[in-house]
Amino acid sequence: MNEIEELAQSFLLKSTITNNINLEELKKDFSNSLIDEYGIGLDEYMEFLEEKILPNCVNVSSPKYIGHMTSKLPDFIIDTSKLVTTLNQNTVKLETSKVVTFLEKESIAILHRKFYGFSDEFYSVNIQNKKSTLGNITSGGTIANITALLCARNSSLSKKEGFEGIDKEGISGALKAYGYEKAVILGTESLHYSIEKAADFIGIGSNNLIKIKTDEFGKMSIEDLNQKIKTAREENALIISIIAVAGATESGMIDPIEEIAEIAKKEKIHLHVDAAWGGPIIFSDTHKDKLKGIECADSITIDGHKQLYLPMGIGCVLFKDPTLAKSIEKSANYIIRTDSYDLGRRSVEGSRPANSIYLHMALSIFGRRGYESFIDNSIRKTKLMADIIKEYDEFELLLEPEINILLYRAIPIELREKTKSGTLTVKENEKINDYNIRLQKRQKELGESFVSRTTSKIKKYEDQGIVVLRCVIANPLTRDEEIKEILKEQIEIMGKI
Amino acid sequence: MNEIEELAQSFLLKSTITNNINLEELKKDFSNSLIDEYGIGLDEYMEFLEEKILPNCVNVSSPKYIGHMTSKLPDFIIDTSKLVTTLNQNTVKLETSKVVTFLEKESIAILHRKFYGFSDEFYSVNIQNKKSTLGNITSGGTIANITALLCARNSSLSKKEGFEGIDKEGISGALKAYGYEKAVILGTESLHYSIEKAADFIGIGSNNLIKIKTDEFGKMSIEDLNQKIKTAREENALIISIIAVAGATESGMIDPIEEIAEIAKKEKIHLHVDAAWGGPIIFSDTHKDKLKGIECADSITIDGHKQLYLPMGIGCVLFKDPTLAKSIEKSANYIIRTDSYDLGRRSVEGSRPANSIYLHMALSIFGRRGYESFIDNSIRKTKLMADIIKEYDEFELLLEPEINILLYRAIPIELREKTKSGTLTVKENEKINDYNIRLQKRQKELGESFVSRTTSKIKKYEDQGIVVLRCVIANPLTRDEEIKEILKEQIEIMGKI
Repeated sequence: MNEIEELAQSFLLKSTITNNINLEELKKDFSNSLIDEYGIGLDEYMEFLEEKILPNCVNVSSPKYIGHMTSKLPDFIIDTSKLVTTLNQNTVKLETSKVVTFLEKESIAILHRKFYGFSDEFYSVNIQNKKSTLGNITSGGTIANITALLCARNSSLSKKEGFEGIDKEGISGALKAYGYEKAVILGTESLHYSIEKAADFIGIGSNNLIKIKTDEFGKMSIEDLNQKIKTAREENALIISIIAVAGATESGMIDPIEEIAEIAKKEKIHLHVDAAWGGPIIFSDTHKDKLKGIECADSITIDGHKQLYLPMGIGCVLFKDPTLAKSIEKSANYIIRTDSYDLGRRSVEGSRPANSIYLHMALSIFGRRGYESFIDNSIRKTKLMADIIKEYDEFELLLEPEINILLYRAIPIELREKTKSGTLTVKENEKINDYNIRLQKRQKELGESFVSRTTSKIKKYEDQGIVVLRCVIANPLTRDEEIKEILKEQIEIMGKI
Repeated sequence: MNEIEELAQSFLLKSTITNNINLEELKKDFSNSLIDEYGIGLDEYMEFLEEKILPNCVNVSSPKYIGHMTSKLPDFIIDTSKLVTTLNQNTVKLETSKVVTFLEKESIAILHRKFYGFSDEFYSVNIQNKKSTLGNITSGGTIANITALLCARNSSLSKKEGFEGIDKEGISGALKAYGYEKAVILGTESLHYSIEKAADFIGIGSNNLIKIKTDEFGKMSIEDLNQKIKTAREENALIISIIAVAGATESGMIDPIEEIAEIAKKEKIHLHVDAAWGGPIIFSDTHKDKLKGIECADSITIDGHKQLYLPMGIGCVLFKDPTLAKSIEKSANYIIRTDSYDLGRRSVEGSRPANSIYLHMALSIFGRRGYESFIDNSIRKTKLMADIIKEYDEFELLLEPEINILLYRAIPIELREKTKSGTLTVKENEKINDYNIRLQKRQKELGESFVSRTTSKIKKYEDQGIVVLRCVIANPLTRDEEIKEILKEQIEIMGKI
């Protein structure tokens, strides 16, 4: 083990999550804008890493870091990163990746089959077919979502008599050619903010991301979906896509995909399911029904760097129809030849690393049951945490967890009765908000554990913005014990703030 | 050193570039679409890597692989990859990256200063300012180019009386509000195909990427630029951006940035310079004048995974104006708070790895002179190769290399005289085209060396499509000796095809 690896190992052994150094202090160390003329030695840089960087990174692998969607990675994945970097393949093109092109297509096919379950014949025709794109590996869920929406946009405004296609003529021309007033996307408030980015970036504007009402659990209202489709049609709007979420970033909630899919099918609208977080539930025999209907989605986003336990920077988009991505195809003589195996032909990104090695390896080594056990355990631990919270007067559970994201808050002693009887005023809720901000900040500063904080519109408080403590329980290192300790620590802090 | 690392080491020691296995054969090994129920052991997977993957990857680190923009990475970068993966920071947000947020901003500032050279005061105000974005690290040059064009698009069609901004209302609304007929981008045929992607994806359509004529070297014609601007104005088109290329992917050519910048300034048009390949020339005192005028660009793309010798998957976009990226800002309660340090607020991508560690480390260790020596040597070796080619009757140099990309071709014995006297017919050129395809394929199959092949419109052949051999000379391991050997091998092959 060389020195850099020792550094890495020592980082994982840290018991605290991060140094409690003031940000304004910390940033002073990073105020250099001049490149050194001669450069410094590796030893000197190692000292810098050891003293300035590592103590001030966030130990997202800690079993008590349950605030965001990061986790300890499997050791074999960490070891493999050196191989992937050494190989330095570029999967944009066969000549810079060769076998990795086929490995990527196989990895994508394995995910595709798990979601769509087509026949042996379908896969034997499509898996390594130059003309077929079952999906793309991307740098993350955002690019996966953008890719899906670009494909949906381009395929619904494609070439026809007197019109060369939106890819050539742009949106204004496309809407004119097809006689639409505007183009919209339908989804709920629970969508990830990348969809708002996408609506801006693909040129329809985020005002045209039409927000469908949700029920008390934050799930898409089917009634309102029908209503919004009707309104869009009346306004002569093209509906590029309905987007359902499977594992909302804030709450873990899953939209009623099956019912949405029926409507999408009937209305002939592209259905995209953003399963960046919840996708791997498909591996669990116990929980996979939560995703029922996802096999009808025209495109699906899954993140590798979330519940597939791959390194940061790996997302994935799947396409039901292997020809859908033809709508975004581009080529160039010097690099991406038409009719080649080159993966860069039908992707948003160009050059990219051989991240399929991680994906293929993890799928092969964990197997279905490996991923199933991660999912089952995470959901079990989250239910456990919810149960404990319900037992304590100190806490209020704000949403029964659907999967492994939990929203709750701490209640100061003097307002516990009113919380129970459901008679809190808006002012009192504001007071509780401040209390939870103080609590979460203090716990973060102490550095032993970390839960995140968000402001959520809670139905039972008539959509008042409620500051909630948010736990994401996915780190396999997090045991029941740590969950109990984190709550215990919060109760201790409550005595002091 | 564990087994996976031994595998990686053994890969680098291979003398051949890749196994000469037939693609149709190779892909048969990747026809599985079913996830294993229980998973296989690490040992078994290692055998698979050793037998099926490594022999069929491309040894892009080989000193005789001079066909594409990949290279051997520095050992300290390879070692650091394990640290970066272990840390698994997510730079979308301070709470999942902390110090890496500041490290990224510092790294970007160092590049920014090298290109723009603003004052100490400018950097002390902006380097760690929440409101300032001097640039973004991206997954590659394509996302960097797209980010730049989105910023250019959004800032030229921003909010005004009666209009909420293109980000909210989309392109159709924006063009109406501003009274434009359409929106266009100006650049030459030499642009990377990611610009065509961008024109499609941002919604203006690739037909609205207006192609400016080039001179005999493939550089933008200033006369035609002026003409195309005039035409665009007459057609009531918004010019979102002029794009100059600094190191064209095909030929290495650099547009006359200084003259273009003057026009862009006068006409108040966003100037983007795609310096994905050529950007690091800025570090060379001998060659930096080739980039003269780049300091006037509103945005610049540089790739980390090209001539900064960082791992695949690292690009960068720089913004002259630290507020430009505000035009693409998005936020979300649960993750990216307004007025936070969170880097995800003003980027196309969401979650992404701590790649700034590589960038910062390489800038610190190589220093300016380290990068200068890479650039100077690469350009020197390319000139050497061009000089050798000129001496041989067997070859024809097709373009005097501007930097370190070289275009030439082999000439069969019976056509050498006519090549020299400039009397080749179209038919004869076609014959030479076939000859070069055979030659390049054969050399690739033999697996000792690799040059790439493209079809280029060569002015002296009246824009006939000429098959050229293309060398990209950037691997520090490639010595003069290897260059001579590659040419010698080609001459040997010529005797046999």
